[in-house]
Amino acid sequence: MPNTAIHSVAIVGGTHGNEKTGVFTIKKMRRYWQEQWQRWPSINVKTFFGNPKAIEANKRYIDKDLNRCFNQETLNDVATASYELERARTLNRLLGPKGAAATDFIMDLHTSTACMGINIVLTKKDAFHTQLARYLSLQLPNVVITSEENLMQDHHFLASIASRNVLIEVGPVAQGLLHDEILQKTENVVVALLDFLEQYNNDCLPLLEDSIEAFEYISHVQYPLDESGDFAGVIHQDLQSKDFTEIRPGAPIFRLFNGNTVYFEESRPLYVSFINEAAYYDKKIAFCLLEKITL
Amino acid sequence: MPNTAIHSVAIVGGTHGNEKTGVFTIKKMRRYWQEQWQRWPSINVKTFFGNPKAIEANKRYIDKDLNRCFNQETLNDVATASYELERARTLNRLLGPKGAAATDFIMDLHTSTACMGINIVLTKKDAFHTQLARYLSLQLPNVVITSEENLMQDHHFLASIASRNVLIEVGPVAQGLLHDEILQKTENVVVALLDFLEQYNNDCLPLLEDSIEAFEYISHVQYPLDESGDFAGVIHQDLQSKDFTEIRPGAPIFRLFNGNTVYFEESRPLYVSFINEAAYYDKKIAFCLLEKITL
Repeated sequence: MPNTAIHSVAIVGGTHGNEKTGVFTIKKMRRYWQEQWQRWPSINVKTFFGNPKAIEANKRYIDKDLNRCFNQETLNDVATASYELERARTLNRLLGPKGAAATDFIMDLHTSTACMGINIVLTKKDAFHTQLARYLSLQLPNVVITSEENLMQDHHFLASIASRNVLIEVGPVAQGLLHDEILQKTENVVVALLDFLEQYNNDCLPLLEDSIEAFEYISHVQYPLDESGDFAGVIHQDLQSKDFTEIRPGAPIFRLFNGNTVYFEESRPLYVSFINEAAYYDKKIAFCLLEKITL
Repeated sequence: MPNTAIHSVAIVGGTHGNEKTGVFTIKKMRRYWQEQWQRWPSINVKTFFGNPKAIEANKRYIDKDLNRCFNQETLNDVATASYELERARTLNRLLGPKGAAATDFIMDLHTSTACMGINIVLTKKDAFHTQLARYLSLQLPNVVITSEENLMQDHHFLASIASRNVLIEVGPVAQGLLHDEILQKTENVVVALLDFLEQYNNDCLPLLEDSIEAFEYISHVQYPLDESGDFAGVIHQDLQSKDFTEIRPGAPIFRLFNGNTVYFEESRPLYVSFINEAAYYDKKIAFCLLEKITL
């Protein structure tokens, strides 16, 4: 086996407590997966519920978004008391510590109210993650690979406790809802990722494409607000559910309640994701802008 | 005008605080509808937010489902203290009192995570409501009329404060989410209903079909649970999103996490609605069963 083999894997669900798909995927694996584990003999998998209190409350989080707590500055912020900061330090002890983690690979299971399909979010585009992305593209034809590497230097995602990691976004599904197809897609990704790791460890990956198409996060667009700070309109019907399609200058993006339409004003075509994600309403984020890259 | 004319109309949004469509439809009407009101000169419309505290909290309710509080027994239950019971009595004073209501007609705006399309829920099938249903079927070709008349003698819905009323369910849309198409459908129903009332008052309704197809609520089906009372499976993919279609004995209804499938065991074909409604998870209701009727 190569030096960089992945022996210790953590699968986390319920990092956001109202994303039930991850929670029930973990429950199912713990209870009903017995034979399955034998398929990946080189890997030791542990499963975790990210945010137990938020899962119980069927809320994204109690005090603070847990999936924004794993940069070193936040992990070291012992002066601020909150349930999620405490939980982040606990998870960092169990899976990490970040920078010298006992866990070789973390996959964190999420869902979105946006039409994300099966979206694999990378925080790195190094040789390992590029290989992983190419493998998934081969196995799951509709998978969409995005990178948030450029978002920040020290990443705040839970999965970033381990130096090798992915965040899985499947959608659309309402918060608090279980949906057969979304559960199956999530389970398929987990299996495909474990297959990849097993083959990676045994140096027997199939022949992969030299390059694949992916998207890099650039920025996000805010909702138009009225003078009281409330939404002044909604995502325009022409943009709704068009995640990962190209948006051209002049395309309608918001329908305002006063009857007007707001148009896309960037000077170049870009791509869009997380269109009308309910969890981003508190930050008034309407959608994300991406540019196409090659991995 | 006939004796039974509708002069005083109440439109209520946010009876469930996380169904934002109704809330924003009310906000839009209050702020941007000026000319529109002149289209219905015989009607005086007032708009209400059903559950202000739940709207603020983006939750269905604070203590108790407000839309289950309007039967006389609950309205008279002054011994129990809860925010929603207090709010129900306040609304009953403002719009009612039930049985001798100052409001001639109430429409209550709801959404569902199920694929309800545009669903008009009647609590009565008398001549007035039958006429209303036939009018909407003419104006909005995809509307689905359901009756919950047989559900209970003294109805617990907010809209039942007035003897003439409808509940509007539009979906699918996630809780807490605003969706352009869902907002437009809701607004179209409101306009069509006000048009109906205006024409009803002026005795100038168009020629309506002699009879239309509708559905009567019969019962509901519970989720299979494990020994800890948690979900043992999910709505089967073959049933998901099939609201208002026929379900035949032997059709798959649940996919269990243990790998088994549960099949529909009724002896006769029925129709289904509210399939996988997130708001019914706390009561473990999986879907409702309906039978076809003629209005």
